[in-house]
Amino acid sequence: MELLDKLNWRYAAKAMNGKKVPQEKIDNIIEAISLSPTSSGLQPFEVIVITNQELKEKIRPAAWNQSVITDCSHLLVFAAWDTYTPERINKMFDLTNDIRGFKNEGWENYRQMLLANYPPRDSEVNFNHAAKQAYIAFSQAISAAAFQGLDSTPMEGFEPEVIDEILGLKEKGLRSCVMLPVGYRNESEDWLVNLPKVRKSKEDLVTVIE
Amino acid sequence: MELLDKLNWRYAAKAMNGKKVPQEKIDNIIEAISLSPTSSGLQPFEVIVITNQELKEKIRPAAWNQSVITDCSHLLVFAAWDTYTPERINKMFDLTNDIRGFKNEGWENYRQMLLANYPPRDSEVNFNHAAKQAYIAFSQAISAAAFQGLDSTPMEGFEPEVIDEILGLKEKGLRSCVMLPVGYRNESEDWLVNLPKVRKSKEDLVTVIE
Repeated sequence: MELLDKLNWRYAAKAMNGKKVPQEKIDNIIEAISLSPTSSGLQPFEVIVITNQELKEKIRPAAWNQSVITDCSHLLVFAAWDTYTPERINKMFDLTNDIRGFKNEGWENYRQMLLANYPPRDSEVNFNHAAKQAYIAFSQAISAAAFQGLDSTPMEGFEPEVIDEILGLKEKGLRSCVMLPVGYRNESEDWLVNLPKVRKSKEDLVTVIE
Repeated sequence: MELLDKLNWRYAAKAMNGKKVPQEKIDNIIEAISLSPTSSGLQPFEVIVITNQELKEKIRPAAWNQSVITDCSHLLVFAAWDTYTPERINKMFDLTNDIRGFKNEGWENYRQMLLANYPPRDSEVNFNHAAKQAYIAFSQAISAAAFQGLDSTPMEGFEPEVIDEILGLKEKGLRSCVMLPVGYRNESEDWLVNLPKVRKSKEDLVTVIE
């Protein structure tokens, strides 16, 4: 299966060479992110795509000074909703009705259930729930890069509050949760590129109940 | 790109027909889960693969009585570590040293940093962090199913404490976080199968900073 080939090929690039990725390939990554499933279809996150070099330089110190921040082509910042609001929930349900061209009682009851349950919850619970949905899309972005021969670096090692401040995310009701520099590996500078993948045994990963 | 075709093809199946999925295809899904990247390579989750029909019947009421629980072929339950312990962290770092055949000072310093930071944190923070890693793998499992013509149903709609109790996960230091019934769609019974996919506009999804 091609997917397994790509997952085997990819690794977390630790050095990139600054080469620019064609826009079409970035568009495909965005499309994969867009198509990713999310809980109740809410897509509770946004993606900031950064090519501005000055901005990347500004972000780098807040990301453990990792070189891929500045040597990548496109830096993708996944920012989840800071909470669920009635407006946000209604917008997606209204969009669904618009696209499908009809209202459905079951669907409207489901909307009311979410409206009754999500907004009153602690915002940290909501943010964590939204962030998990962002991780589903983040995972597909990694695949979409690999399918196009692009390297990427799944990255949690950064100070989210600083990134939020730099990108003005708080005002938008967003919180950065994970980043993905996308570009091309610099093999001679990358300590990880030739090391074998490490995965726990299937016995430690899977329990089968027949 | 084939990945986009598969993401377009898939949907959250709302009815399945009970047909059995060949073991080889399940093995490929497990392989995709195993190959998924995780933070610091810790793979802080396990997957319970259930084909036992009695057990599926027992789980169904705790999952809003959704029919796919019993009509799927294999029910995958993703269960994240309830917290990070020194034992769990050391096991993965030791495995890495074993597989790579050497110890590296930078890597050992990184181990010490995780040991100093993760175990003392609130277990809810740790569980949420671990669950996010499980979602990365969950996303790849959905793709791996689609690449093989299998349907699946991304599912958060269940009572995790009840599932944990039924599967004895607490004793293993695990907490269920998301489920994935895998099988074959039952088109005539599925209200969602012929409805168009709904996704927010790219303008609402992406901000570009050049």
